[in-house]
Order: sequence, then structure tokens, then C-alpha cells
Amino acid sequence: MPAGEVGLVVRNPPRADATAVKALSGFGVATVHEAQGRTGLLAPRLRPIYPGARIAGTSVTVSVPPGDNWMIHVAVEQCRAGDVLVVAPTTRSDAGYFGELLATALSARGVVGLVIDAGCRDVGELTELRFPVWSRAVSAFGTVKETLGSVNVPVACAGQIVRPGDVIVADDDGVVVVPRQDAAAAAAAAATRETREAVSRTRYQAGELGLDVSRMRERLTAKGLRYVDFEDLENGSDL
Amino acid sequence: MPAGEVGLVVRNPPRADATAVKALSGFGVATVHEAQGRTGLLAPRLRPIYPGARIAGTSVTVSVPPGDNWMIHVAVEQCRAGDVLVVAPTTRSDAGYFGELLATALSARGVVGLVIDAGCRDVGELTELRFPVWSRAVSAFGTVKETLGSVNVPVACAGQIVRPGDVIVADDDGVVVVPRQDAAAAAAAAATRETREAVSRTRYQAGELGLDVSRMRERLTAKGLRYVDFEDLENGSDL
Amino acid sequence: MPAGEVGLVVRNPPRADATAVKALSGFGVATVHEAQGRTGLLAPRLRPIYPGARIAGTSVTVSVPPGDNWMIHVAVEQCRAGDVLVVAPTTRSDAGYFGELLATALSARGVVGLVIDAGCRDVGELTELRFPVWSRAVSAFGTVKETLGSVNVPVACAGQIVRPGDVIVADDDGVVVVPRQDAAAAAAAAATRETREAVSRTRYQAGELGLDVSRMRERLTAKGLRYVDFEDLENGSDL
Amino acid sequence: MPAGEVGLVVRNPPRADATAVKALSGFGVATVHEAQGRTGLLAPRLRPIYPGARIAGTSVTVSVPPGDNWMIHVAVEQCRAGDVLVVAPTTRSDAGYFGELLATALSARGVVGLVIDAGCRDVGELTELRFPVWSRAVSAFGTVKETLGSVNVPVACAGQIVRPGDVIVADDDGVVVVPRQDAAAAAAAAATRETREAVSRTRYQAGELGLDVSRMRERLTAKGLRYVDFEDLENGSDL
Amino acid sequence: MPAGEVGLVVRNPPRADATAVKALSGFGVATVHEAQGRTGLLAPRLRPIYPGARIAGTSVTVSVPPGDNWMIHVAVEQCRAGDVLVVAPTTRSDAGYFGELLATALSARGVVGLVIDAGCRDVGELTELRFPVWSRAVSAFGTVKETLGSVNVPVACAGQIVRPGDVIVADDDGVVVVPRQDAAAAAAAAATRETREAVSRTRYQAGELGLDVSRMRERLTAKGLRYVDFEDLENGSDL
Amino acid sequence: MPAGEVGLVVRNPPRADATAVKALSGFGVATVHEAQGRTGLLAPRLRPIYPGARIAGTSVTVSVPPGDNWMIHVAVEQCRAGDVLVVAPTTRSDAGYFGELLATALSARGVVGLVIDAGCRDVGELTELRFPVWSRAVSAFGTVKETLGSVNVPVACAGQIVRPGDVIVADDDGVVVVPRQDAAAAAAAAATRETREAVSRTRYQAGELGLDVSRMRERLTAKGLRYVDFEDLENGSDL
Repeated sequence: MPAGEVGLVVRNPPRADATAVKALSGFGVATVHEAQGRTGLLAPRLRPIYPGARIAGTSVTVSVPPGDNWMIHVAVEQCRAGDVLVVAPTTRSDAGYFGELLATALSARGVVGLVIDAGCRDVGELTELRFPVWSRAVSAFGTVKETLGSVNVPVACAGQIVRPGDVIVADDDGVVVVPRQDAAAAAAAAATRETREAVSRTRYQAGELGLDVSRMRERLTAKGLRYVDFEDLENGSDL
Repeated sequence: MPAGEVGLVVRNPPRADATAVKALSGFGVATVHEAQGRTGLLAPRLRPIYPGARIAGTSVTVSVPPGDNWMIHVAVEQCRAGDVLVVAPTTRSDAGYFGELLATALSARGVVGLVIDAGCRDVGELTELRFPVWSRAVSAFGTVKETLGSVNVPVACAGQIVRPGDVIVADDDGVVVVPRQDAAAAAAAAATRETREAVSRTRYQAGELGLDVSRMRERLTAKGLRYVDFEDLENGSDL
Repeated sequence: MPAGEVGLVVRNPPRADATAVKALSGFGVATVHEAQGRTGLLAPRLRPIYPGARIAGTSVTVSVPPGDNWMIHVAVEQCRAGDVLVVAPTTRSDAGYFGELLATALSARGVVGLVIDAGCRDVGELTELRFPVWSRAVSAFGTVKETLGSVNVPVACAGQIVRPGDVIVADDDGVVVVPRQDAAAAAAAAATRETREAVSRTRYQAGELGLDVSRMRERLTAKGLRYVDFEDLENGSDL
Repeated sequence: MPAGEVGLVVRNPPRADATAVKALSGFGVATVHEAQGRTGLLAPRLRPIYPGARIAGTSVTVSVPPGDNWMIHVAVEQCRAGDVLVVAPTTRSDAGYFGELLATALSARGVVGLVIDAGCRDVGELTELRFPVWSRAVSAFGTVKETLGSVNVPVACAGQIVRPGDVIVADDDGVVVVPRQDAAAAAAAAATRETREAVSRTRYQAGELGLDVSRMRERLTAKGLRYVDFEDLENGSDL
Repeated sequence: MPAGEVGLVVRNPPRADATAVKALSGFGVATVHEAQGRTGLLAPRLRPIYPGARIAGTSVTVSVPPGDNWMIHVAVEQCRAGDVLVVAPTTRSDAGYFGELLATALSARGVVGLVIDAGCRDVGELTELRFPVWSRAVSAFGTVKETLGSVNVPVACAGQIVRPGDVIVADDDGVVVVPRQDAAAAAAAAATRETREAVSRTRYQAGELGLDVSRMRERLTAKGLRYVDFEDLENGSDL
Repeated sequence: MPAGEVGLVVRNPPRADATAVKALSGFGVATVHEAQGRTGLLAPRLRPIYPGARIAGTSVTVSVPPGDNWMIHVAVEQCRAGDVLVVAPTTRSDAGYFGELLATALSARGVVGLVIDAGCRDVGELTELRFPVWSRAVSAFGTVKETLGSVNVPVACAGQIVRPGDVIVADDDGVVVVPRQDAAAAAAAAATRETREAVSRTRYQAGELGLDVSRMRERLTAKGLRYVDFEDLENGSDL
């Protein structure tokens, strides 16, 4: 693909396998991020506009100029049911690129949410519509429609590379991207991790310590961890 | 007015026309901001202390020194029913200028809310009282009462000039100021915009695209927008 | 205590008197902060992960390397019922040091909450568990377990020194620390302050002004405060 | 003036008196800011692009949309020798509004510098040209020329209201604005302050303390300041 | 390439054509960024550690965990003369990943500079060595060597995708990346732009206005720009 | 010491041993920070007001209210030759607490520099005087003299606990604190580290790699690091 080209709309990129997306939708962002080797987590500046939203879907990416949301309108047409729109400005912008009308348009096509490293507006209406958005800012500032960007090219969004068709999982903890080809493997690894965590959870609930559940004591001692009683420290008997 | 004077309280500034304020109260911040040519939006760092609050009222402005809330007490006396207190520090301060007692005092006078480019405290109590505040920070840090500022002079608050008697509209999207003399015109423009948006909304709900509703295709093509199928791009048949 | 030592766990530090902690639990953060001379307030970047939480307890402090939560596991063992875990990284880190499993472990020991100048994850689950956390960021980014820190040594957390056994009070306004030996005095001062505020509140509710309740008028005049009518100002009759 | 109007260029606003501007040019930013009652200081996020620059001049103000520098070109024509261009975006933008070509144009007209609450580029070239700029960011990101703003209307720039014709003084400490009508008074007050400081300086150089030079001891004692020797504190003989 | 894989070192990626890199080295960051359609500019938070440095070279990319610089040592071996090291942490870190020893190692191999979206230390020594670094922070905080990352995979660095072998151009204005395949085209476009700017510069130096040089007046009028004399505005004769 | 007491000046705290301070003055901040186990580094937001300054001295600590520099005047009297003033506000403040007059007073007493987690002004004059300051901001905003703080009590400054008499080392990399009792040990450890680094430097200059100098290869392989040629990766022969 011509790397630096602006004004390109890529149609029909392959999406991650639907079964894998379905599987990933059963896990939280932290689990998925861990399951793929602590990669893919978007920067924590992206926050949900209301608590409790949870989505998983395939990305339609949009590279936009600062303060210009024209390409989002172009991108809507490229969206299918189950997609998540992922919008990255080419330089920082807090403007309100997205509001109720665009959410209506996306909902009508079955898009499950928006991830945007910029501003969002109409958050009251979006909350009522239950259209989830993870954004950098809430801002009513209007955008123009003057300059081209691109749709469905790789973008750097909030510190991660997102390619069209990748899986996006988002919840109250933030947003994680799973590369398209890795979706099934990530889902399997997440399941394994969750099973292991369930065991730990039971032991923790019973009052066991992580020190014992994960057998940390020996290594801590080897690293030189030293325990001392407060009283001895104060008395100087420890020194 | 002596421009740089400190320690001035201006009594009885004219307020924006009550009918216009009433009309503006029916619109969201984004609509009002757009209706007046994308002006007047305060910086998005001002956030509501609880979701769902919506106010419109006439501004009583307060210029305060950093970490000193004395002038807010002075300003309370200048407030009338339907006013909104607008507080701007002369340099950045995150201190907690405002809490439950001042909210009680303002409520007793019919003031509908507070906009402050600084900190606010007692947010649990203010939420229970349903006294809405848009602030830069939540902070319990106390303020002193040592240095004068001014009341009802023009202030620069969160990036906008606010004059006494201007209209303040605030909701989950943030805060916008409408100059006093423009209130009626802004309300009319907002109504026009909302009518137009209602038409678009219906078309969007029916699945139409912004590309068609707003007839963008021709201009996009003229700017050089290019569509290519992913498969052709990968095969190089597009290059 | 060896000041710069790393890898030290101090056992059984004295805790603040339980009666004083109980007494302090009845006051908000702003009141406690004021009651002890406007000291001890942690920086407002620490925010609760859900609204409405209120805790008071005795601190178990943890100094952690950036991106490494090993010492939190070590600290859990040092916690008792009524404690609050206070975690400070040695340099800025937004990583997700703490999640559901650690909350389960702490809950099992009766710990009442977490204060962390870093990231927290699983906030959906923590909200359901009603385990309150005040953190700098929400981030799912995982931490490693490679480097030692210390437990129950004095730490600088979000701008304040916190020592083991100090009292932590936290609510929607943020977090305040009360030095261990000062707990009873602070509780008494908070009670005094609250009584005084109750009187003011009644007068404010009745429509009285802070200017009169706190007798500010004379001092304002002495400082040079000047009142002028808007009309006179416009006419220049004031100048 | 129509308050919210966009697309307005005001020609020939009165400038502050040239003698007063000349006088103010002899003082630093801190002195001028103090001399006018600690008002008028722009936010410290505005930093000079190279150290050692010092200017004083009369403001030509520009309100610009985010990421759009069209109005700066319009403003150049309104500038005269001795002016300072003051540029404020209507919402945050870090784009590079200004570079070598515009500096060349302004220099050709005798403009003495630029103050911009946004980004600047070509800073290497500007440094060679010795064209001083105080900006919020250095960024090469290009701007468009699509949307109108206004010239020579009051703007809120970095936290202060700046009106056309006001005096701008800038140095390594930042930027201060002096209202047009107050220029002579501010210069006189600055001279008085500097004379007083010269006396203090001599005493300080001779080893006298501010405590004595400004006679603070009595008031400190009255406020309750308490001196204690470290040794007594450690021995507990102080408690 | 396995997208999410961690712990991968890609050897011998193709570098951008040396002639094109040489050509690009003759242009500033702003010119290159403009020449490729306003793309590729890294975020302005990356600043040079000393003024006046200018480099162009081919990227060796490094994806590093937060607070862990192990992979930089791995990357050194993959560097050749003329390369620029580009380091991106997987989540925000301000730690000091890089200092004098690594600079010595890179200099010995002919590497021309470092771009890092994290912290750098030994900046005094690096300045003496004239080894240029563009970093997010200056911090002496040490890093560990515990966790793998990857070398010469695509990274998201300060808001842009950087691939191995891409061209990096950096100067006082910041850092721009030119995709490997586009290097020659970008150099040609930059030359064209610079020629055009030279013409404009001459006209600007002669006192011509951008309004005329770039023939903006007609379009400004069409957009509704309105000129009014200050005096008429004050008299109301304009309204 | 009464922990939360405000308005306390502690006289004659013991200073770190002068020989140890002298020894520490020979090392950079990064070396000292590493030598004491990666502790004690103040946050990187503290930056020197001019490049090239290097100091080491014993701390006189000052806890100040936001926007109030009264206690700095009190602290001057407690300073001796070789001290460094360390100022920490009780909540964030960017005001200009310190300028030329206070620098004159400190210089007259032989104080070697200032570390302040707040603003500083007169930076042009301070640079001429070669009085070094590490500060969070440069701001001309004036401070008041109304509220007490404390001198020579432990403070939390920019993320670290600083006690009176501790050693402060500062250079272009930032600021590090060494606890008073650990000064000699830290100096010794720094010397050891520097010797070791000198050996590494020679090897690095000769073109050796950190991978070999520090024998990293085996452990990297054990962790799973994998090398692959770019060409093989593209051909898929690696997968």
C-alpha cells in the first residue's frame, strides 16, 4: 500500500474471524491484553463516556486531520454490522468529531461502538442511545469538512497500531487491539488465563496469599527482601 | 471601565433578555456553540461534577486570586434568581474554592449553577443538593480570604471571554457562553439548526448516509478521494 | 530506619488509635483537611473509581518500582482489618498495578480500600465488589514482579508524606492523611469545625450572606473594595 | 461591537501611547505584572523559543480557528511598526501556525514579536532571524486556510483578555498584557517598584534578611510562628 | 509477520535509498512534513536535548516495555552507519532508557541519533558528545533488563507508525517519518516546495503580503470577511 | 516532631557530613540515583532554568502554602554556606515564589541553589547571577505573605521525601536526594559505579556491544528472543 498516501479509502478489508471475535467478547480488556503478551493496549487517556459499556468488534480505521471529521462520514459507508470505528487524528485535536447524528448512522448499520483519540460530543444523547464511545476528551467544539484523510489504512491510535479488520475489545478498563490474524490464538490464551485466574480467585477468597498461591517467597528472599519488626527498628536492635 | 483595576464590584449589570435565556435553555451546548458560528465554547477541561445536569442562566463573573475565595462571598450578594456564577482565577489554581456552604447560599438566591476554572469540593454533598458545578478539578484544598479580586468585570474563563449578564449554557458536553446582546439571535439560530438536524436524524435513522444527506460525494471526488478494493491493493493491481 | 534502603518490610508498625479512626470516619475529606490546618491532602489527580465511596482506615504503605507490583503482594500479608493500602511508585507509572484478585485478597483480610498514585484495572469488577480505589489512572497495562521495593516505610504519595499507621480518609473529594499521633486531635478539631459549619449552614439556608455570617465587610472595605453601579460606570460618572 | 461575530477585521484601533510603551520596555515582565496589581500575566505555558528575548509593543489581536492560520495573513496587513501579534485559537490547537515566511512579512513591517497560544515552527530559522516568539508548543504540523476568524477584537489568550492596542511586554519570564489606557500608570508604578527594589537589593547584597528589610518578624510571631532547636525536638524537651 | 509477537528481532530490513536520505537531509522537518501531504509528524512532546541538532537517517525501530531498556542493547547490534534508533514504549514511561554508554555504542557504529517517546539521561554528556536525542522527558530514573520487546517491527511512536528502514528527519521543530518507499518522492516534493517558498520569501522580504502573494483576498471576501474601521465601530455607524 | 504542625521553624538540624557532600558533588544525578538503589530521584518535571548547572549541598526544607512565599524569607535565615533550599507547596502552585532578590539573599549566605516544585521568576537575572534553580515552571505571577508553613521539617517534594540536612545533587538530568545518614555510603557506591562504567565505556568506544560487555545473550535466549531475517519473514519461510 502506498504508505504516506492521503485520500485513500480501502474497501472490503478482511475482518477477523467472527467466531474469534465472539470468543474475545467474553473477556475483559485486561485479560485480552495479558493473553497476548501485554501488547495492544491503547493509552489510558481514552475513557468511556458512560460506565458499564463492553464491546468487541472488528475495526474500520480512519485517519483524520485535526479538527476535520469529513472522513468519518466517508468511513460510515465502509462499516458493516459488528464493526467498531477507530479514529486517529494526524496531530492532537480535542475537537468534537462525533455526535448523535453519526451515532445514529452507525447504529443503523450495526456498528457496535467508537474509539477516538480526540473529542466526542452529545454525550448525554449517546448515553441515552447506549452507543458506547471511548474518547480522549468530551468537547462540543465543531469540526470542519475540508481536508481528506484515509479509511481502512493502518493508523497509530493512542499509542498502538490498529489495522483494518483487527479486533477491538473495550470496557471500563480501556481499549485493546488484537491483530486480525491473532484473534483465535488470543481468545484461546484468554480462556486459559481466565481458567487459571478462577483457581487463584477461589484460593484468594479463602484467605490465601499471592505470596503462597504464586510461590513468591523464595525468589523474594533470593533478591534480598528483609523483614524487621517495627519495634526492633525503633530500638536500633535491628541495625 | 478602568481595565486593570482590582477590587471592583460592579452592581446591577444588565442581564441578557429572560425570554432569550429561556429559549436557549432548550438547546444543548453543542447546538448553541454551532449556532453562534463555533464560538464561545469553554475549554473541555471543565467537567460537570455529576452527569445529567443542564442549565442556562445569566453570568455573574468573578475574578479571583489563586487559592483565595474571598471574592466569591462578595459575588453571592450580587446574584439574582436565574444567574450562573462564573469564576476565573488570575493564574492556575486547583484549590477547592467552592463547597456546600456557598452552594447553600447561592441556592437560597435562586442561582442555577457554578462554572469555575479551578477546584470544587464537597462534591458528594453538592450532588445530593443537585447544585450543578462545572469545574477544572475536584479538590478539598482550602482557600484563604486575604486578597481582593473583582465582580462583574469581563473575565477570561477557560479560554473564553465572559462578561456580566452573558448567557451561560452548560450540560454534559461542557459550557458555552453567549454574549448578552446576541442571546435572541443565538436562540433563533439554534432553533433553525435543531430543525435541520431533526430532518437529518430521520434520514440517518432510515439508513441514509451523511455522504448523501449532505451531498458530499462530488466535493470529495474533486479533492481527489480514491477508492480501492483491499484485494486489488494487496495484488498490486491498483498501483 | 535506614533511609534509602530498598527491600525492607516493616512488621507490626503501631496503628493510629482505633477510636480516633472511628471518629474521623464520620467526617469528610475537606473537613479533616481543614481541621488539621490545611495539611495532608493528596493531589487531586487521585480520583475514586466509582462515586459515593467513603473510607477511613490505617495505612499500610508500599513503595513500588515503576510497572512492578510485586511488593503489593508482599504488603497484603502485613495488612489487618481496618487498614488502607497506600501505594507510591518511585517514579511516575500509569500501569495497572492492582485488580480484582488483589482486591479479593485484601477484602478477605478486612482491608477497607486502596490509594494508589498509579494505575488500577478491573474497575468494573471492583465496582461490583464495592472495593473502593483512589487512583491516578485506570489502565489495564500489566505489571511485572522483578524488583524489590519496601513495605511500611514512609512514602511520598501524591504530594504528601504517608507513614505506616497514619489515618487515611477518602471520599468523593479525594484523599487526606492524618499523622498517627494527631488522629485524636484531628478528630476533635473536625467535630468542632462541623459544629461551627452547621450553624453557618442554617444561617445560609435562611438567606444570610457569608459577608455577614463571617463579618467580612469591614475588612473588605479596609482592603479597598469599591462598589459601583454598572450604569454609573458606563456613563463615566464614576471615574 | 457585535460580540460573537466571526469574520471581522477592525482597522486602525488606537494603540497605547508610544511614550508609555517605550517606558514599559525598560521593565521586566515580573515588575510590570506586580506594578499593575498582579494582573495581566499570561499562563506560563507560553515559553520563548530562544532565551534572552525582550520585547514591548502594542497588540494586534487575532482570533483563529483550531489548525487554521488564514487570519494571521489577514492580520499582517493590519500591523504597524512597534506592534506585537497576539494569536488565540478558539479551542486548543498545537499546530504550527507560524513560521519563517510570516516572520519575514512581520519583520518587514516592523512588528517586534509574536505571542501565540498554539504551535510555532521553523524555530531554528526564527532564532537566526532573531524574531522572538512566545508559544505554547513547537510543532511543524501545517495549518489550513479555510475558515474565518477575526482581527483586532478582544481575545482570551492564555488566560488573559487582550484587546487591540494593549501593551504586550515579554521576556524570559513570560508575557504580560497592560490595558491600553493603563500604560502610563503602569509604567510609573513599575518605576516606583524598581526604585524600591533597588534599595532592597543593596541591603540584601549586604547580607540583610528579608525578615528585617520588610519587617516581617512581628507579624510572623503574631500568626504563631514557633522556633525550636532540632536537638530539643529530638529530645522531646520541646513538647 | 506475526503481528502481536513479542521477542522478535528482525535482521537486515531494507533501508530507504541512500540517495533519497541524503536529499531529505537537506530539508527541515516542516518542509518534509508538508511535502508528504502533512503526514508523518511525530507529536511535539518529543523535544531535542540541545538546540541546533539536525539529522536524517534510516530507522531501526525498538518496541520496549515500560521502564525496561534491555531491547535497546539488542537493537544496537542491528544498527548500521546512517541509522537512527527509534524507541517506543508499549505504555507511557518517563524513565531514563538511554544515556552516555549507549550513545557511545551507537556512535561507534555510525548511528546519527535517537528518537525516543520516553526519558533520556546524561544529557550534559550527550550534549558534549554532540549525540542528538529527541525525547519526551529528561529523567535519570534507571531502567531494568527483564522483559523482551522487539526490534525492527513496525511501532507506534509519538503518534506515528514507524517501520524499519523508514527515513527519520529531525531538527529543532521536531521529528518526521517518511515511509521507506516514499523517500525519493518526498525529497522531490520537498525540493519543489522549497523552490516555491524561496520565491515567496523574496516577495515577503520586499514587503509584499501573503494576501497578495497567495491571492487570498477574493476567497476571503467570498467567505464573508468584513473590514470596519475602529472609529466607525465605536460610533455605531457600522451597525 | 508534631507531624501535622504548621508554623514550625526547626533550627540547626544536623547536616550531612561535609566530606561526603564533597564526594557526592563529583558525580552526576544519574550515578547517585543508581548508586543508592534507584531511589531518591525527584520527578522530571523539575528542570534547570539554564543548562550546565551542577550543584551538591545540604537541604534546608520549606513547606509553603500555594501562592505564598512568606516562609522562604523565614527559611533564608536558617541557611548556611553549602546549603540548598528545597521548597514544596502543600498543593500544586505554578506561582513565581522566587526571584532575583531572594537569590541575592541566599547567595550572600553561601547557599548553592534552589529546588522548588513550583514556579520561579526573574530567570534572566538568575541566569546572569549564575544562581541555579530547578523548578516546575517559570512564572512571573506574584505570591502573597499571609499564611504560615514550616522550615526544616520533612517535606514531599516532587515525589520524594526530603528531610533537613539531606544531600541534594542536581544537574541537567534533574535532582536527587540522598538521606543524610547514607551520604558517605552513597558516595562510595557512586565511585564504585563510576569505575565500573569507565571500563564499560572503553569497551563500548572500541565498538564492543552491551550484549557482550554485560553478557546478556544467554539470558535473552532463555527468555525466548528470536532472530529472523527480514527476507525470510517476507517469504514466509520463517513461519
